[in-house]
Amino acid sequence: MAKEKKLVESITSREVDFAQWYTDVVREAKLCDYSGVKGCLNYLPNGYAIWEKIQADLDKRFKDTGVENVYLPVLIPEALLQKEADHIEGFAPEVAWVTQGGLEPLQEKFCIRPTSETLFCDVWSKTVQSYRDLPKVWNQWCSVLRWEKTTRPFLRSREFLWQEGHTIHATFEEAEQRTLTMRDVYRDFIQDDLAIPLVCGRKTESEKFAGAQDTYTVEALMHDGQALQSATSHFFGSSFPDAFDIKYSDKNNELHSVYETSWGLSTRIIGAIIMVHGDDSGLVLPPRIAPVQTKVIPIAQHKEGVLDKAGELLDTLRAAGYAAKIDDSDKAPGWKFSEQEIQGIPTRIEIGPKDIEQGQVVVVRRDTREKTVVAIGEITEKLGEILETMQKDMFERAKAFLDSHIDSAVTMEEMNSKFNESRGFIKAMWCGEEACEDEIKAQTGGASSRCIPDEEEHLSDVCICCGKPAKHMVYWGKAY
Amino acid sequence: MAKEKKLVESITSREVDFAQWYTDVVREAKLCDYSGVKGCLNYLPNGYAIWEKIQADLDKRFKDTGVENVYLPVLIPEALLQKEADHIEGFAPEVAWVTQGGLEPLQEKFCIRPTSETLFCDVWSKTVQSYRDLPKVWNQWCSVLRWEKTTRPFLRSREFLWQEGHTIHATFEEAEQRTLTMRDVYRDFIQDDLAIPLVCGRKTESEKFAGAQDTYTVEALMHDGQALQSATSHFFGSSFPDAFDIKYSDKNNELHSVYETSWGLSTRIIGAIIMVHGDDSGLVLPPRIAPVQTKVIPIAQHKEGVLDKAGELLDTLRAAGYAAKIDDSDKAPGWKFSEQEIQGIPTRIEIGPKDIEQGQVVVVRRDTREKTVVAIGEITEKLGEILETMQKDMFERAKAFLDSHIDSAVTMEEMNSKFNESRGFIKAMWCGEEACEDEIKAQTGGASSRCIPDEEEHLSDVCICCGKPAKHMVYWGKAY
Ligand SMILES: [Zn+2]
Ligand SMILES: [Zn+2]
Repeated sequence: MAKEKKLVESITSREVDFAQWYTDVVREAKLCDYSGVKGCLNYLPNGYAIWEKIQADLDKRFKDTGVENVYLPVLIPEALLQKEADHIEGFAPEVAWVTQGGLEPLQEKFCIRPTSETLFCDVWSKTVQSYRDLPKVWNQWCSVLRWEKTTRPFLRSREFLWQEGHTIHATFEEAEQRTLTMRDVYRDFIQDDLAIPLVCGRKTESEKFAGAQDTYTVEALMHDGQALQSATSHFFGSSFPDAFDIKYSDKNNELHSVYETSWGLSTRIIGAIIMVHGDDSGLVLPPRIAPVQTKVIPIAQHKEGVLDKAGELLDTLRAAGYAAKIDDSDKAPGWKFSEQEIQGIPTRIEIGPKDIEQGQVVVVRRDTREKTVVAIGEITEKLGEILETMQKDMFERAKAFLDSHIDSAVTMEEMNSKFNESRGFIKAMWCGEEACEDEIKAQTGGASSRCIPDEEEHLSDVCICCGKPAKHMVYWGKAY
Repeated sequence: MAKEKKLVESITSREVDFAQWYTDVVREAKLCDYSGVKGCLNYLPNGYAIWEKIQADLDKRFKDTGVENVYLPVLIPEALLQKEADHIEGFAPEVAWVTQGGLEPLQEKFCIRPTSETLFCDVWSKTVQSYRDLPKVWNQWCSVLRWEKTTRPFLRSREFLWQEGHTIHATFEEAEQRTLTMRDVYRDFIQDDLAIPLVCGRKTESEKFAGAQDTYTVEALMHDGQALQSATSHFFGSSFPDAFDIKYSDKNNELHSVYETSWGLSTRIIGAIIMVHGDDSGLVLPPRIAPVQTKVIPIAQHKEGVLDKAGELLDTLRAAGYAAKIDDSDKAPGWKFSEQEIQGIPTRIEIGPKDIEQGQVVVVRRDTREKTVVAIGEITEKLGEILETMQKDMFERAKAFLDSHIDSAVTMEEMNSKFNESRGFIKAMWCGEEACEDEIKAQTGGASSRCIPDEEEHLSDVCICCGKPAKHMVYWGKAY
């Protein structure tokens, strides 16, 4: 009992100190920790297993749209990185340089990829000639490195894991469509599998990716009211491929430019899962993304037959396709409950002598702690229903939270007071000038334009900041 | 027809020039190509898809033995790499160093991981205290970098993809058992899934991994008679963990050393698949590892109903769980056949107007080109049988080749003449001295000790080289 208390007490209350709560959950759930390399993480088994589930689910969605996976080098020659001006300007300050190979200094230095647009373009410049070679719809799962000053687990680190998709197309329309398709793949994946509701749209000029013509984004709202950019999809037009001299000849042997896209989602999304669904007892994983869906916990396991029955139950669950584990260690049940809760395993199944006598088990949901007594013969069916309901409930709860944290403003006073009261998204009109974005950020203490939504509302005729005619309605928010 | 010819002619005959044949197959099957970074490969969709299959199959086998996946940083601080003397000595000449982060020079330089023993030990030194924390059975899928001078696709490149498993255990016996278990996992995977027969054993002192106490290996024989080390499993004892001060307290609170293992398999194995199974028409993929198991090729597809029926067939195959594709492009059937053969897709299914009339299709095996006429209603059942038979036949053929290329020798004259005649493995007795290994290598023009097999034969009382009393029977061979 003492140990149980200690486990839960090691997590700061979410309401008392959100940042500390986050750090505590990451540590106590054993998701990752800092390595000996400043700003680089060790992804531990519990954390990496979530990433593996994300990879499997998202990769399947990618492949359903025709994506092929590849792997390009971890190193980029300096000359290659410099080929596209906006791009190098965006990344030069934060790349790590390799200057020595083996025992000798290198003639040309290489950077560790911060992103791989230049490498993909380099491959295509050598291999794409004809319309028959198009489109190329490629993706790679890898790590990238950006020499950040400040770091936080999953949210910002020097090295992080991600996927980066890169495509080229014969027409503007096809590339634009691909950009939107991938944005929608992210949206559906995050909403359906991660139970995280989103605001979708495109970025303003100043928030776009270095070198992109358009950046589409999906934005989630954390429990502290801060936004988190959860995935982005970029449309490059022809500027990038032109810089690499990628051209194709059509059926009439005429040369044309190609149109490029890129799109990515990173381990940041694990931070979003924590901050959207977690509570004061730790992590809460949506059932569809949980590496372990249920944990069997025997009660009074020293009594005859309990461990046997628990083991049978485990076998039954696994045979039915559930990701199930058992905790038959000599720890007290209360300790086991706490650990299962801290790690966010969606359900636990308690089975003790009385349950066995009555031919039943008790299923406990992680999110609501609701207990359901289930006849042991019906467990494989009922557990699926409970997990599906839990998945749906988690999304609905997060959606209600998001909806109640979206407000609108037509004056700066209104916006300021609303950002002071409670965080969240605030909708407001904007003239299209970066100066106003800067001004709003300064006045609100950090709120940035998160996106221009697909469907804009007309809140007023003028920019909330400068009073000039409004061009767009923008979602504003303070962001991670 | 001209085009078809051209496709096949682009591959040099295996008997004429094996090295050129290999390069041609890699290029024509579009597996990988050289990137702009010297010695680094671009893994293209066809090549990377094979690696994805290997990952999926092997990872499942790992997890069945209790392995957990993690991800540790790509960078290793210089001081960390230097903690184990043999290790740094082994790797220092071939690592790449990062000396600049962002716009500033670094105070301490980092190398890009050539292997991650030091990082795993660093994590454990901070987190392992009690016997309750043991064992740790971790693995990561990642890329590593070694600044090699010469490079060949898959066989040797500066950056390559692999998995590296690292474990620590409370006892010598448990760690030794893990080393052997993983060697067996590799053996079963390579023999069962890749249809590559192996010679298994442990390495001599001079061929061991830097810092290891024992290195177990599985060795395959390529079609040119050269050996290829296909996976290794290392037992470190306590030297490595001791250097990192990893100790655990037992139930009586007494401190003990832990025992370590590591084990890995890399993209080299794709080179083995090519060189064991490929032929003059290109790649031949064992069905269990083929990303695409069958390709539907419509004949006279301009005729009414052919494309419809071919499409239906594709749907039927996919619904039955086959990895199936269709080539309904406007290329000639002969061209499509060649492409399917070059890429090593295990079967193609030809379907034309006559077949449709007779309610049948023609399945053609890639390895033997054997044609089987199958009633269309039985295709999902028959295709599975054909693929299973092909998998078995491929292993049997490779096994017959291996067996016929294992010989033995009791004098150096005999060994030399046998290595001159035909390559392969030669079994011979050895005194245990490195000097004799060097001498044998010099005399035979490069044959090295491949392994001491689990079950040694007694061929003679004395070392084949120096005539001193023999300690072991060794498999010798020229290796990639
Ligand atoms: Zn304005
Ligand atoms: Zn000798």
